[in-house]
Amino acid sequence: MSKRLADLQAGDHLEMPVLIEQMDVRKAKNGKQFLALTFADASGKIAGKYWQASDLDAKTFVAGQIVLLNGQCETYNNALQVKIDHLKLAPPNTYTLDQFVQHAPLTKQQLQDQMNELVLEITQPHWNRIVRYLINQHHEGFFEFPAAKKNHHDYTGGLAFHTLSIAKLANAVCDQYSQVNRALLIAGTILHDLGKTTELSGPVNTQYTVEGNLLGHLVIMDGEIVAACQQLKLDSNAEDVVLLRHMIIAHHGLLEYGSAKRPQLLEAEILHDLDELDATITMITKAQAKAQPGQFSERVFGLDNRRFYVPANLD
Amino acid sequence: MSKRLADLQAGDHLEMPVLIEQMDVRKAKNGKQFLALTFADASGKIAGKYWQASDLDAKTFVAGQIVLLNGQCETYNNALQVKIDHLKLAPPNTYTLDQFVQHAPLTKQQLQDQMNELVLEITQPHWNRIVRYLINQHHEGFFEFPAAKKNHHDYTGGLAFHTLSIAKLANAVCDQYSQVNRALLIAGTILHDLGKTTELSGPVNTQYTVEGNLLGHLVIMDGEIVAACQQLKLDSNAEDVVLLRHMIIAHHGLLEYGSAKRPQLLEAEILHDLDELDATITMITKAQAKAQPGQFSERVFGLDNRRFYVPANLD
Amino acid sequence: MSKRLADLQAGDHLEMPVLIEQMDVRKAKNGKQFLALTFADASGKIAGKYWQASDLDAKTFVAGQIVLLNGQCETYNNALQVKIDHLKLAPPNTYTLDQFVQHAPLTKQQLQDQMNELVLEITQPHWNRIVRYLINQHHEGFFEFPAAKKNHHDYTGGLAFHTLSIAKLANAVCDQYSQVNRALLIAGTILHDLGKTTELSGPVNTQYTVEGNLLGHLVIMDGEIVAACQQLKLDSNAEDVVLLRHMIIAHHGLLEYGSAKRPQLLEAEILHDLDELDATITMITKAQAKAQPGQFSERVFGLDNRRFYVPANLD
Amino acid sequence: MSKRLADLQAGDHLEMPVLIEQMDVRKAKNGKQFLALTFADASGKIAGKYWQASDLDAKTFVAGQIVLLNGQCETYNNALQVKIDHLKLAPPNTYTLDQFVQHAPLTKQQLQDQMNELVLEITQPHWNRIVRYLINQHHEGFFEFPAAKKNHHDYTGGLAFHTLSIAKLANAVCDQYSQVNRALLIAGTILHDLGKTTELSGPVNTQYTVEGNLLGHLVIMDGEIVAACQQLKLDSNAEDVVLLRHMIIAHHGLLEYGSAKRPQLLEAEILHDLDELDATITMITKAQAKAQPGQFSERVFGLDNRRFYVPANLD
Amino acid sequence: MSKRLADLQAGDHLEMPVLIEQMDVRKAKNGKQFLALTFADASGKIAGKYWQASDLDAKTFVAGQIVLLNGQCETYNNALQVKIDHLKLAPPNTYTLDQFVQHAPLTKQQLQDQMNELVLEITQPHWNRIVRYLINQHHEGFFEFPAAKKNHHDYTGGLAFHTLSIAKLANAVCDQYSQVNRALLIAGTILHDLGKTTELSGPVNTQYTVEGNLLGHLVIMDGEIVAACQQLKLDSNAEDVVLLRHMIIAHHGLLEYGSAKRPQLLEAEILHDLDELDATITMITKAQAKAQPGQFSERVFGLDNRRFYVPANLD
Amino acid sequence: MSKRLADLQAGDHLEMPVLIEQMDVRKAKNGKQFLALTFADASGKIAGKYWQASDLDAKTFVAGQIVLLNGQCETYNNALQVKIDHLKLAPPNTYTLDQFVQHAPLTKQQLQDQMNELVLEITQPHWNRIVRYLINQHHEGFFEFPAAKKNHHDYTGGLAFHTLSIAKLANAVCDQYSQVNRALLIAGTILHDLGKTTELSGPVNTQYTVEGNLLGHLVIMDGEIVAACQQLKLDSNAEDVVLLRHMIIAHHGLLEYGSAKRPQLLEAEILHDLDELDATITMITKAQAKAQPGQFSERVFGLDNRRFYVPANLD
Repeated sequence: MSKRLADLQAGDHLEMPVLIEQMDVRKAKNGKQFLALTFADASGKIAGKYWQASDLDAKTFVAGQIVLLNGQCETYNNALQVKIDHLKLAPPNTYTLDQFVQHAPLTKQQLQDQMNELVLEITQPHWNRIVRYLINQHHEGFFEFPAAKKNHHDYTGGLAFHTLSIAKLANAVCDQYSQVNRALLIAGTILHDLGKTTELSGPVNTQYTVEGNLLGHLVIMDGEIVAACQQLKLDSNAEDVVLLRHMIIAHHGLLEYGSAKRPQLLEAEILHDLDELDATITMITKAQAKAQPGQFSERVFGLDNRRFYVPANLD
Repeated sequence: MSKRLADLQAGDHLEMPVLIEQMDVRKAKNGKQFLALTFADASGKIAGKYWQASDLDAKTFVAGQIVLLNGQCETYNNALQVKIDHLKLAPPNTYTLDQFVQHAPLTKQQLQDQMNELVLEITQPHWNRIVRYLINQHHEGFFEFPAAKKNHHDYTGGLAFHTLSIAKLANAVCDQYSQVNRALLIAGTILHDLGKTTELSGPVNTQYTVEGNLLGHLVIMDGEIVAACQQLKLDSNAEDVVLLRHMIIAHHGLLEYGSAKRPQLLEAEILHDLDELDATITMITKAQAKAQPGQFSERVFGLDNRRFYVPANLD
Repeated sequence: MSKRLADLQAGDHLEMPVLIEQMDVRKAKNGKQFLALTFADASGKIAGKYWQASDLDAKTFVAGQIVLLNGQCETYNNALQVKIDHLKLAPPNTYTLDQFVQHAPLTKQQLQDQMNELVLEITQPHWNRIVRYLINQHHEGFFEFPAAKKNHHDYTGGLAFHTLSIAKLANAVCDQYSQVNRALLIAGTILHDLGKTTELSGPVNTQYTVEGNLLGHLVIMDGEIVAACQQLKLDSNAEDVVLLRHMIIAHHGLLEYGSAKRPQLLEAEILHDLDELDATITMITKAQAKAQPGQFSERVFGLDNRRFYVPANLD
Repeated sequence: MSKRLADLQAGDHLEMPVLIEQMDVRKAKNGKQFLALTFADASGKIAGKYWQASDLDAKTFVAGQIVLLNGQCETYNNALQVKIDHLKLAPPNTYTLDQFVQHAPLTKQQLQDQMNELVLEITQPHWNRIVRYLINQHHEGFFEFPAAKKNHHDYTGGLAFHTLSIAKLANAVCDQYSQVNRALLIAGTILHDLGKTTELSGPVNTQYTVEGNLLGHLVIMDGEIVAACQQLKLDSNAEDVVLLRHMIIAHHGLLEYGSAKRPQLLEAEILHDLDELDATITMITKAQAKAQPGQFSERVFGLDNRRFYVPANLD
Repeated sequence: MSKRLADLQAGDHLEMPVLIEQMDVRKAKNGKQFLALTFADASGKIAGKYWQASDLDAKTFVAGQIVLLNGQCETYNNALQVKIDHLKLAPPNTYTLDQFVQHAPLTKQQLQDQMNELVLEITQPHWNRIVRYLINQHHEGFFEFPAAKKNHHDYTGGLAFHTLSIAKLANAVCDQYSQVNRALLIAGTILHDLGKTTELSGPVNTQYTVEGNLLGHLVIMDGEIVAACQQLKLDSNAEDVVLLRHMIIAHHGLLEYGSAKRPQLLEAEILHDLDELDATITMITKAQAKAQPGQFSERVFGLDNRRFYVPANLD
Repeated sequence: MSKRLADLQAGDHLEMPVLIEQMDVRKAKNGKQFLALTFADASGKIAGKYWQASDLDAKTFVAGQIVLLNGQCETYNNALQVKIDHLKLAPPNTYTLDQFVQHAPLTKQQLQDQMNELVLEITQPHWNRIVRYLINQHHEGFFEFPAAKKNHHDYTGGLAFHTLSIAKLANAVCDQYSQVNRALLIAGTILHDLGKTTELSGPVNTQYTVEGNLLGHLVIMDGEIVAACQQLKLDSNAEDVVLLRHMIIAHHGLLEYGSAKRPQLLEAEILHDLDELDATITMITKAQAKAQPGQFSERVFGLDNRRFYVPANLD
């Protein structure tokens, strides 16, 4: 019973606490309602159907609940699913959400510590104040949200971890090319995706919010910088603030990818390039990890559906 | 001497007050500096060179000054230019800028009156307050700026005139399709290009500002709505404000044209379509006006370099 | 039993007259043939399978027939379908096709009356004669065909209704911009999609015809204008006829969308823009009508798969 | 004095009959008008300016006239031009246009003979009648017009020569692939560009006509097939005529290149491919002929601005 | 029992030798493994599942084996499949692979003979030696491999057959256009796809190899020409060899289709055009062969998903 | 007289040794030939015309020669040029080419030393041997050629300097992401542009060679790896060599940019990204260096014609 979801095979019996990651109420052929569920623990996921669900069940077994799952593992359409025997809520306070979700390679504390050090590199006072103000405003989300709904860094703490990875690359670039303004590049790096705490719904069962769909995290964060300036008595149209705002609204690079403007600062172009580099390396690594040596990975949607080869004999 | 610039022909002598619309300091073959000037009155423009210009001349005859121009009309590269004999500043207060620039078909007072009536159609109180607040903030520019640096409505008052033209089309659409929210469509129409008062430098010698280049009028106006909300104690993330912000940041339609998001509201799509329709009709009409019946116009840059036919026998 | 198809739920018994909208003969696993049917009434549609169909059945229950359907409603793949108990032809003359198909918001008579008034606005005599000649030629189809196989105005009378909607917008544009030639714009509007009566197979079970696939409704109508000119003793290469022909063959705007030429007349550009505007508003409205307040609609294929938001709190 | 234009060098005196290929009236710096002329003989072209031209001169020395040119050869902007000493009309009937224009490698008689033989291969009676009817209608133009305004086959008789070249390739394809319908392919080949006799103004000083710009030669020829059917009492919507019409309106291959439909017949696809193949070979050959062995040609506009290499050592 | 796969219908019993073209080991719902098989003979293919397969079965019934298949034909998802009763390996040496695979219209001997004659047309000695060297190196594959994994010429001998078809077209072009270098065009034609014997895995169960995926047949063949030059003591950077190498690496025409360079020789452009022409004719013919007169074919993936019409009344 | 070209102003007299960087023989209006020259020293360039040049002059003053230039500085078309008084060859051996060309920030010795250290990081023996073999083959060019004809690193030693810059970034990426194979990434980095020593003509007056135009440096280097393998008795189709070859032929990323294959290895994708990053930073820095604080740079061709802002107040 101490198995993890990632270890299950067809035929296994399972009885374990899991998180409900997603739940839809559907109608069966006979008109009766059932629940289509996705369960998760820190190792992986499994789907299952809960038949003949009452209205009370539909209100109880919602996304975000931790439940005790009892059932049988079987194969359906070449994927594992669980045939549910019993399902009940786990007793309150016996488990915490953290136990059931995948987390960044660093702990929340480590993420916060590294971010605090990073802020010290923003030597320009206005940018420093704005960045600290906005980190405080979104402190909880910044260190818990994923960096994306899927594709890359789609786990708890992914947003902060992705931000720190870019910052490390950014520091290496600043060391090599002295013409780059480190304070601007680091300030832009920290804020570039912070609007995702408003664009996305949260670390679990992540969805786009209405603001996310209608405005997007670039415009959201630009608006927040303007609002921060009003609180901090700074002029949001002064050159230094405009530079920082440009870092945010240009970081998707191409207009087709949602940049309101293409990068027109050296630092804005670099931020865009490093953002893509970190996401690219992460996506390829994730795809290769699932493939065998001597094989090509599955297609990577975010990289134009390319497949990547895992060498057979590379030491 | 009472001729207008539009009436001049090669060989004419001219002696008249004109506006310096553009001026560049350049070096001649012999190393001496001269001024390359563009003069304008309300009817048209003419170029000329002022040779052997002193440093004082270069500081005196700048864009925006009204001067008394004395010279000879000649042809150069198939275009008219003026061979300057004398050039001196017009006596202060003898002329006003208005006499020398092209103006919208409506007077400033008419533009303001029609805009005031239009605001009454915004029956939703939050949008109404935001719109009135921002018109007040940019009152001077709104009724003086052009709607674009070139292409369409590139004359004083063009911004307000273009806005009112779209609003008239918008009201016709609302009359025909009852499902359209008139308050939202009119509020979005009024604000959609208002950021141009920050994006562009002014009604004369119009250039893009640094904010204009790095942020663009969509993001600029979105930031101003956020700031207005702080002043008016409104929540800039409430649904009604988010809808209005979406109207602004989506109004260029395609991401490739600088929309941060594509239109996802019926009213946002209609605003975009009517904005294009008014600009298109204006550009075609302007090009056709310069061509003869039975001929094709010059190529229209803003319409994929198409040429438009002026029928020979159409009554 | 007086239920409409749109009101059915899983588990309902049904016994009612319906139209066979589509029928395919297929083979079952055991090699026996069955009929895959789509039934319709004016409110909606439902699918069903008729098992062990004889060759006679396959010739009897074809698209366009009205039948008495007796069966049970059930859910299959998240959609309702009917489990057929009995199926027989409705007695002749007990029903008319009109009872079972969705119709435009206006009656056929209203469509014809409004169209007759519209023709009066074509004050140029050649265009007026050509338009009247072609309306007469295609009188039946013009007021019965849909405007498209799907996407927008896909109901009986949709072609004429869509044409009249564009014409209303066109008149508003002519009122606002005096440079537009109303006679040309209205004549082009009436004929622009009339070729669809040849391109499509009819108001029910609408398919593309061979001419439709190989020539398209733009070229078809251009050919018919040439033929009309021969009957009316007009020169099909005279400027006025060429202008009208251009209105038709350019109305898809972009070459990629099947325009043989891009619009090169002010009126041709406006016709294209208003055609798109009416189709766009109709598609968005149709999609939003199926969604709940506070939700996004399903993706709209004809609008680049965008989803449209239905505001939660908009009055 | 027996020199050809192609042989002239800077410093040469010339005195010879030439054709005025193009003429523009322009204004000089001093306001006086002059004529900008392009002269041609069968070997090449040369430009020249005729200063201080009277209004009578401007009406006399128009495109299409044959004149006796007396002047001096000089270099201007790296190109030869003629400094005109005298210019007068050649005495009537002393020369014919044919002497001064470049002609296809075959004589008009040869072109006609080969075309007559080709028509015999159209064994389907309706297509045969339509093709013969339309060749008769445009007999003069078909054997005199160029195949294009520039790029390829831009000489007298080019249209018929290009048509015959494609037909030869088409027969080779039919010999190799028995599934191709030879009658349809040959009929389509003969008519595919015949609309150019209406689209273009003529064999000399070739311009696009208004019909050419607003309809294009594909739609023009489709309309003429419809008109021919009325004269020949054929049904223009019968399958065989629709196939022939499709050959014409689809022959540009891609919608972006002005096809109203993409090819949907084997023969339509082949016609498009062979049309491109002949034009491509002709453009490359023309560009390579101007380059030296071991060099790359100038860029070929019609082939995406590619340059083509002329091998140094290829026998 | 003498039926071919192409003749089977639902309900037929079958007992016949077939080739295993493809085999995947999968898991059933109950966790037990089964084999998903595709069987083939020279007439066609059929799929089937072998339930409860032992590990030995999974190693025995692999792609490339000839087996005796005993089962029942049934319909599943509108396609035929076989319900397997018995399956066993055919006795060794009772059948040859050739009996079960589709072959080019010419025999291997005919292909070789025609290719030998073709090589004689390469009158340039270096190209002749290189071509003969490389044909020898890949002799077996050249006359057995398909020309593509699917789409066109996807049968044994397809590579050589496709090569010979292009060569016939090439000779017709050389006959018509004397400026074309026949030796270069034929040499390039023979080698252009020869790299596919390395890019693809073989004539049966054809897959892309790792070299195929990572280098592609253009680069592979270019490398082989370099290696051949080393063996033959030729300079791989001499002009004549560079021309031949360019023929290979440019033959896909557009960079987007994997050409390392766009064609910059007349012969390279022609090779590309004829390669496409032969593939296009073959794909259309294959699609039309499956459709009925008066119908459109299924969509052809390799031709932008176009459907092609099969005329109803064309003799 | 000790002035550098970069310091000259209109009116200056100059008398100094310079390199002839480019020379064209042209014809003047009077038919006499003259030389259009570009002179260079290590600081910059200046153009000049040498009138009435004899045939001997045209053979003497060719690109690559060092000459003593005597003349007058003047302005022409807003650019400086030199009015040449005297021109004669510099005495042999009084100057070396190095004095007149711009060089990388590192000396040739430094470039070689750093490259030698870099090779040590290639711990895989086959790649190590191939890389050392090819560096030896192209030793002279590798440390003298520019990295591109223009755009970025267009100076002597630019190829090696650009290679080392990418390698530094590559090492930083390997330090941060342990999954990257450092030996493969470094080996690919060193070879990726080495083919430019064949693609380009040399460090001065750089042109594309015929091999460069027809094959490109990707295919050239791939061929050289194959040839190296033959010399080193390695199998060019073994997996490790194929991986290295893929690094080279995929490094332009997109097929449209001349990659024969898109990157399908983690290391190939990273090489492409870092290649672009270094080129991008270099191009932006070069453009910004020519602009004033508070201004936008000129448009950067290699970056989609973007202009980059130089902040006014950034410390």
